[in-house]
Amino acid sequence: MDRLTATYLVETPLPVARAAEVLAGEQSSGTFVAVPGETAELKQRFAARVEKITALESVATPSVPTGRAPAASYHRAEIVVSWSIGNFGWNLPTLVSTVQGNLYELAQFSGLRLLDLDFPRSFTEKFRGPQFGIAGCRRLTGVEGRPLIGTIIKPSIGLSPAQTAAMVRELVEAGIDFLKDDELMADPPHSPLAERVAAVMAVINAHAQRTGKKAMYAFNVSDELDAMQRHCDAIVAAGGTGAMLSINSVGLAAAKKICDRGQLAIHGHRNGWGMMNRHPLLGIAFPAYQKLWRLAGVDQLHVNGIANKFWEPDDSVVASIASCLAAEPLGKPVLPVISSGQWGGQAPETWRRTRTVDLLYQAGGGIQAHPDGAGAGVRALRQWWEAAVVGLTLEQAAAKYPELAKSAEKFGSNK
Amino acid sequence: MDRLTATYLVETPLPVARAAEVLAGEQSSGTFVAVPGETAELKQRFAARVEKITALESVATPSVPTGRAPAASYHRAEIVVSWSIGNFGWNLPTLVSTVQGNLYELAQFSGLRLLDLDFPRSFTEKFRGPQFGIAGCRRLTGVEGRPLIGTIIKPSIGLSPAQTAAMVRELVEAGIDFLKDDELMADPPHSPLAERVAAVMAVINAHAQRTGKKAMYAFNVSDELDAMQRHCDAIVAAGGTGAMLSINSVGLAAAKKICDRGQLAIHGHRNGWGMMNRHPLLGIAFPAYQKLWRLAGVDQLHVNGIANKFWEPDDSVVASIASCLAAEPLGKPVLPVISSGQWGGQAPETWRRTRTVDLLYQAGGGIQAHPDGAGAGVRALRQWWEAAVVGLTLEQAAAKYPELAKSAEKFGSNK
Repeated sequence: MDRLTATYLVETPLPVARAAEVLAGEQSSGTFVAVPGETAELKQRFAARVEKITALESVATPSVPTGRAPAASYHRAEIVVSWSIGNFGWNLPTLVSTVQGNLYELAQFSGLRLLDLDFPRSFTEKFRGPQFGIAGCRRLTGVEGRPLIGTIIKPSIGLSPAQTAAMVRELVEAGIDFLKDDELMADPPHSPLAERVAAVMAVINAHAQRTGKKAMYAFNVSDELDAMQRHCDAIVAAGGTGAMLSINSVGLAAAKKICDRGQLAIHGHRNGWGMMNRHPLLGIAFPAYQKLWRLAGVDQLHVNGIANKFWEPDDSVVASIASCLAAEPLGKPVLPVISSGQWGGQAPETWRRTRTVDLLYQAGGGIQAHPDGAGAGVRALRQWWEAAVVGLTLEQAAAKYPELAKSAEKFGSNK
Repeated sequence: MDRLTATYLVETPLPVARAAEVLAGEQSSGTFVAVPGETAELKQRFAARVEKITALESVATPSVPTGRAPAASYHRAEIVVSWSIGNFGWNLPTLVSTVQGNLYELAQFSGLRLLDLDFPRSFTEKFRGPQFGIAGCRRLTGVEGRPLIGTIIKPSIGLSPAQTAAMVRELVEAGIDFLKDDELMADPPHSPLAERVAAVMAVINAHAQRTGKKAMYAFNVSDELDAMQRHCDAIVAAGGTGAMLSINSVGLAAAKKICDRGQLAIHGHRNGWGMMNRHPLLGIAFPAYQKLWRLAGVDQLHVNGIANKFWEPDDSVVASIASCLAAEPLGKPVLPVISSGQWGGQAPETWRRTRTVDLLYQAGGGIQAHPDGAGAGVRALRQWWEAAVVGLTLEQAAAKYPELAKSAEKFGSNK
């Protein structure tokens, strides 16, 4: 059987090779003493295998508690471990339990982070992955040759369906490509999702009828499973093209079930991500995370943005974008969603560092708080990207584009 | 509307009150500038509210990176924040996005951990919670007045359905109350779940027919959603009483859908937990975690065990047990699953520290690697608990119980 390969960054007070064997053992036989049924033949076929160890630096203090007496030093290393795909079949949750699972609790490690996964084709071929992906999202929104410009309806929570639809009207008339609910706004009593879908899609459909341009609205369908199915039905019935999932909150199995419907482009919001990523020696790095969600079928995935309002450094954002745009697995890249404190002013640096326009570039306040209104906010974002790709200086761009100039005045000092 | 209350442990370079306002703001309006629609009335109704701040120590270095220049010191505090339940309705995934979500990414914090949640009754009354819970699991297994004795089939992965059934036969004949698959063993090609269910339930049913005692086997149904439904159907059809979910890998929405079936006691395996809990200033503490999964309907939940093979200190295990046994929410405690490196020798200390027998006490190798076989292993575990509750010394217990004595000889030195 072909093998799945996982790469970890680890830290351990033990000799690294011994710690790696503990990791492999926990995720194969999984008990603290040899048991009668554990034959050499079984071990050979089902045991995890340590494929490679690359020693890194040692440190004096453990990154996370071990529950054991202090050691003289803690050794860091990158280790590669493999499993036969016959151990889990085409079962994504059990694959996750295999490559993550109990590993994070092992006392033999003072740090453990899953960096990347490498799937054999005989595994991935059973997964469709993103039904729409970058090409499909471009087709649905009619945008070519530049980033999709998107916004989040703000304030995050509290607007009625009619108020939401009124904001959507202004934004689609300004030519926006993409809109979405905030992750705090799902199906609350003051804005039931079905009513919001009806009100918003009436506006979007009327505009599309008139102009031929249909904006994608990713309604936040995150909910219990049956409710998510109902929400998606309502969107499809109303002619909508997108839905948003808070992927960590909803979870892998239910999210895949929604993606499997294949009718709506799925906007993957990764809120909760910091919990499993923010400590550099714990959790999961974005390349591995992105691959799991790509297999589940998410079409768009959040990556923060340059100079974001969160803690994430630009280098990490740039690496995440590259990871979404990589062909493998499945030959189906995911559309990176640039978000968090964005207003257009980050477009030049985003372009400089990524040289791609295959992005969904989102601004919430950065569009809707534009001094001349949301319409001007949308125009400003497009202008920022035109100027960035052409390579205009801020002075040249400001002279050419009035909305861009006004946004620079307001948000440039605000940042 | 009634309010949901969340308690956090935070660390911040800012004055704590200001950081708390940032947290509340992110989870209400959620943008970096005031937006036109954000009226005072909206804020009043939907804004998160900082209810209480309890200052703790300050430290010189940040617990997790902030992506910002170093500060002179970082202040720790416990803060209590509340939201109107009208913000999310009875939508558990969106509640999670509200109380966890983007918070972990805020640059204003160098540590953030959700400690506890307090739900108003008007929220919890829409949830059934555990269908079986402690009383139901006792009824299904016919065990009163002592812990349920359980085991995990080992080796974790590789046995065929027939081999598994053969091990189950020996264990049920020895009077075991509960058995389960390992989390690595789900529905692989070498042991399709439907075949394993048929083979195992034939043994369990025959034994029940003969003796009146029916052991619960928690088959690992963790999988994609439709597959989980099929797996549960197969278990129910074969007369099984339990199913296991790797709750973190499967995720909240799909797990709740499986719990909602209400036909099988659900064994909640928390593999992956270390990722979100091991760093003391990041993630989620067990009381909050346990409440979310109790609302989802899990009947049994892993808590590690005293002197476990993982990193978790005993104090933390004891606190988790208390958390599962607390009446609220729902007046339905969850059965704590004691596991990880257990062999019976930890029973006296477990009893001394918890004074409860409302436990599912699991040993894998600790039963199956008993020198006289798995049957002796089961008897030894029961003996350890009898001796612990009566208060025998090790000498007294070993003199009275031969299987206990042999297990102490083998595992006592092994530990």
